[in-house]
Amino acid sequence: MGDLEGNAALILAHAESAANNGAHVALFPEMALTGYPVEDLALRKSFQIASAKSIEVLAAVLPPKLVSIVGYLDHVGGAPQNRVAVITGGAVAATYTKCHLPNYGVFDEYRNFVPGNQSLVVRIHGIDVGILICEDLWVDGGATAKLAARTPGIVLVPNGSPFERNKDDVRAALVKKRAIEIGAPLVYVNMTGGQDDLVFDGDSIAVDARGNVIARAPQFEDGMMLLDIEAAGSTATPDLIISEEEAKLDRVLIPGISHRLGDEEEIWNAIVVGLRDYVIKNGFSQVLIGLSGGIDSALVAAIACDALGPELVHGVAMPSKYSSDHSIEDAEELARNTGLRLRTVSIEPMVDAYMNEMKLTGLAEENLQARVRGTTLMAISNQENMLVLATGNKSELACGYSTLYGDAVGGYAPIKDIYKVDVWALSRWRNEAARIAGEKPPIPVRSIEKEPSAELRPDQKDSDSLPEYEILDEVLRNYVDEDLGHNELIAMGFDPALVKRVIAMVDKAEYKRRQYPPGPKVSMRAFGKDRRLPMTSHWREL
Amino acid sequence: MGDLEGNAALILAHAESAANNGAHVALFPEMALTGYPVEDLALRKSFQIASAKSIEVLAAVLPPKLVSIVGYLDHVGGAPQNRVAVITGGAVAATYTKCHLPNYGVFDEYRNFVPGNQSLVVRIHGIDVGILICEDLWVDGGATAKLAARTPGIVLVPNGSPFERNKDDVRAALVKKRAIEIGAPLVYVNMTGGQDDLVFDGDSIAVDARGNVIARAPQFEDGMMLLDIEAAGSTATPDLIISEEEAKLDRVLIPGISHRLGDEEEIWNAIVVGLRDYVIKNGFSQVLIGLSGGIDSALVAAIACDALGPELVHGVAMPSKYSSDHSIEDAEELARNTGLRLRTVSIEPMVDAYMNEMKLTGLAEENLQARVRGTTLMAISNQENMLVLATGNKSELACGYSTLYGDAVGGYAPIKDIYKVDVWALSRWRNEAARIAGEKPPIPVRSIEKEPSAELRPDQKDSDSLPEYEILDEVLRNYVDEDLGHNELIAMGFDPALVKRVIAMVDKAEYKRRQYPPGPKVSMRAFGKDRRLPMTSHWREL
Repeated sequence: MGDLEGNAALILAHAESAANNGAHVALFPEMALTGYPVEDLALRKSFQIASAKSIEVLAAVLPPKLVSIVGYLDHVGGAPQNRVAVITGGAVAATYTKCHLPNYGVFDEYRNFVPGNQSLVVRIHGIDVGILICEDLWVDGGATAKLAARTPGIVLVPNGSPFERNKDDVRAALVKKRAIEIGAPLVYVNMTGGQDDLVFDGDSIAVDARGNVIARAPQFEDGMMLLDIEAAGSTATPDLIISEEEAKLDRVLIPGISHRLGDEEEIWNAIVVGLRDYVIKNGFSQVLIGLSGGIDSALVAAIACDALGPELVHGVAMPSKYSSDHSIEDAEELARNTGLRLRTVSIEPMVDAYMNEMKLTGLAEENLQARVRGTTLMAISNQENMLVLATGNKSELACGYSTLYGDAVGGYAPIKDIYKVDVWALSRWRNEAARIAGEKPPIPVRSIEKEPSAELRPDQKDSDSLPEYEILDEVLRNYVDEDLGHNELIAMGFDPALVKRVIAMVDKAEYKRRQYPPGPKVSMRAFGKDRRLPMTSHWREL
Repeated sequence: MGDLEGNAALILAHAESAANNGAHVALFPEMALTGYPVEDLALRKSFQIASAKSIEVLAAVLPPKLVSIVGYLDHVGGAPQNRVAVITGGAVAATYTKCHLPNYGVFDEYRNFVPGNQSLVVRIHGIDVGILICEDLWVDGGATAKLAARTPGIVLVPNGSPFERNKDDVRAALVKKRAIEIGAPLVYVNMTGGQDDLVFDGDSIAVDARGNVIARAPQFEDGMMLLDIEAAGSTATPDLIISEEEAKLDRVLIPGISHRLGDEEEIWNAIVVGLRDYVIKNGFSQVLIGLSGGIDSALVAAIACDALGPELVHGVAMPSKYSSDHSIEDAEELARNTGLRLRTVSIEPMVDAYMNEMKLTGLAEENLQARVRGTTLMAISNQENMLVLATGNKSELACGYSTLYGDAVGGYAPIKDIYKVDVWALSRWRNEAARIAGEKPPIPVRSIEKEPSAELRPDQKDSDSLPEYEILDEVLRNYVDEDLGHNELIAMGFDPALVKRVIAMVDKAEYKRRQYPPGPKVSMRAFGKDRRLPMTSHWREL
């Protein structure tokens, strides 16, 4: 995000590679030059000017015979626009401005851009190429219909479409439907990589005019696909003719249709990419995780090992007098299984020092232990320049079952959008994947199977404070992700007392979530900019 | 926010009082029934239904002869709408839906509502009354022009317009301009009170057809004004005739034009109201502040004493070996001046306990002290149920000159939108106001005059790490509030090396601000939802 020079260099390298491989057109994702989403940087004049200037500078050095289609930020009379430039012959030959601006979920595009209202068709090697940008494709009867009426020979669509569980099928269905409606092949190119709380999963798709998939790129992987697509020529009245002569290929390209990832594998990859990119793009190399022997921290550690390699993952066990024997043993087994580096810092001397100075009981004493651990993690982080990972899951965040400035400390929270039942499912999946690969399963079986406990008082169990996760998570999924109300939840058959209790917990914990670290969105509705609710609220569902 | 029953009861009580005082029309602020802003609650079906039902229930009990104009949330085919209901005779007689939805700054209305596209004119006692909602009034050539073309006899405008420094003059100018354009008196009624990081300052205004101010309500005070406004009858073709007979008043009403507050007084009131409402509406009564003897914590304490009364304000001094002698003395003087309750907890035993367990040096050791203080504050907060107030100012937040989970802990941050130079200005203003009132100035002079220091290492001064505040704050104001870029800052004459340094600090600290507590917006651009920037960003202004 924002690295205009670095992104231009990447685009140039890929365009040159494409040209060297005989490509006639190179299509890059939405706002590839600036990164996406740029958020309020779109409103800053200096950034608008820099992006508009960078596209000109880039155009001058891109392979002149290639037509490169590159997303960037432009401005018209101070109004920021989400655009693509059609670049050839060392200059920007035409531009297309996104017409439909998503302003729901994680998107604030109506805030950050001014929409376009013109379609664009350019003739390249005799083919009339139409261009749309991301949301344009999703709106019925809008920019897509307008373009379809112009009968392009092919449609190219740069996208910045973040990962959501199971979203891939929706995308493929849409791409097929639009190709059939337009009656032309359609190429959907999506961004890859992590950016704050979003992960872009690629999953680029090309279909023919009947909606048959010609090619599909792997999910979560940066790369380039070379495609040879049959398209009818001279089908439209183009806005611009770049070239008329038919394109000739000197060889046959066999397009790949990538294997689709399963549900757990897909989520695992999303979190790995989100974490890796947050760490690296923010200049960190090593991460630090408090290891309790429990499943949440074990899962985060396993993800971190996959993202960065175990030698860059540091664990710290911080036992207290309430820690069970297996806490340390399980953390040690995790370290042996994965190869991460484990150290131990006892929190008892610090806890005792506070307890001597202040009279603390009950929740205050429980929270104290969590906060001493938080301070310990941050001290090591500061001393050794490691990024602390918070290990809270979505069930905990939802219910406020975490301690602000305690277990909630960290720069990134990999599993904040994963309900507890999925924490277990992902852990089992990862161990099974290791077994299939003939590797050592990373996560200790006892961490998966033991009863969840915060271990902040004697014999404490999560079930003392929370409903059973299997039921809790179902209520949460419907209340948080589906935004259903009390009456709808009751109508689904959930116990009324449970529903009341869960809703009250979720509503009350909004202030905690506001101060929680960012983490990758993988669900339909993640906490954060995907779900914006007041902290101060007297709305009660019943 | 969200307290439909409570708000309905308040509306009813005021409507009855209005009717008893002979009023014919009662005008309430934007979304008075639901509270404002409702954020994503607008998207929840259960809340849409509840609001729409509540307006019917309220309508049935409102004084039947009065015409009450009440803002609420409605829904049409699942689409949420920001509306006002015109209520009389025990039922909703007509509605008007907001046509222009602000989606900039702190507003996300394009996300949360579907706009209307119809004007509304109702005849009440022979006067053709036009209605607009807030943003409708600000857009040239839109809903206001459409309504003006219908030549209403008076225009009533409910608003939810948050406080910003100096905004009042803009409002008055707009109200006057629109009244003249429409050629009719205009009544602008604004919400009062704090809601998370917004403060609504009231400042309701009535002007005649020539734009002369007839009445202006006090800022920051809940209340009701009774106005007798001259308006021409039967000027338009109304959508609905409620009554034709001329309204008679049995007495003469002398409208008040409230004294405008000065800049510091206005800001002081905004923060006091914001803090008070956050505390009370979230079910707290007492607040806790770490008192360092420095100016930031002294100012926050003085504000808290004004907001809640000193008996509900608790201070804790947490000296370390780096604390100067005057730290405790100044905190004690503050306590004597204000009457707040002060206690002392030495952090040395806890710091020593950490230092024995871990080898910490430099920044890690400095941050440790701040985090031990943070944990101490939270321990007291948990034990005694007090809301911790964070004492960071906007200069610190901008530059990242604070410790996450250390001095940054808290549920509310009263001065997070106040630059350091204004921290001093507000402190001097408050002391002077006390002197004028013959009261004891709350803030110790030495706290105002001593050189700022975090006191985390021997002889540390803010000026070791930061430019002089007088210059720093000017650069920040232009970079953060005005969103100017590097070249523009240089063109203003700022030292290039300083500009480069300040921009780098601000950009790098975005991750800290994301985890900072909420606090009242008083500037044109506050950190938080007013300024949304990526954490992961390689954009460099130069």
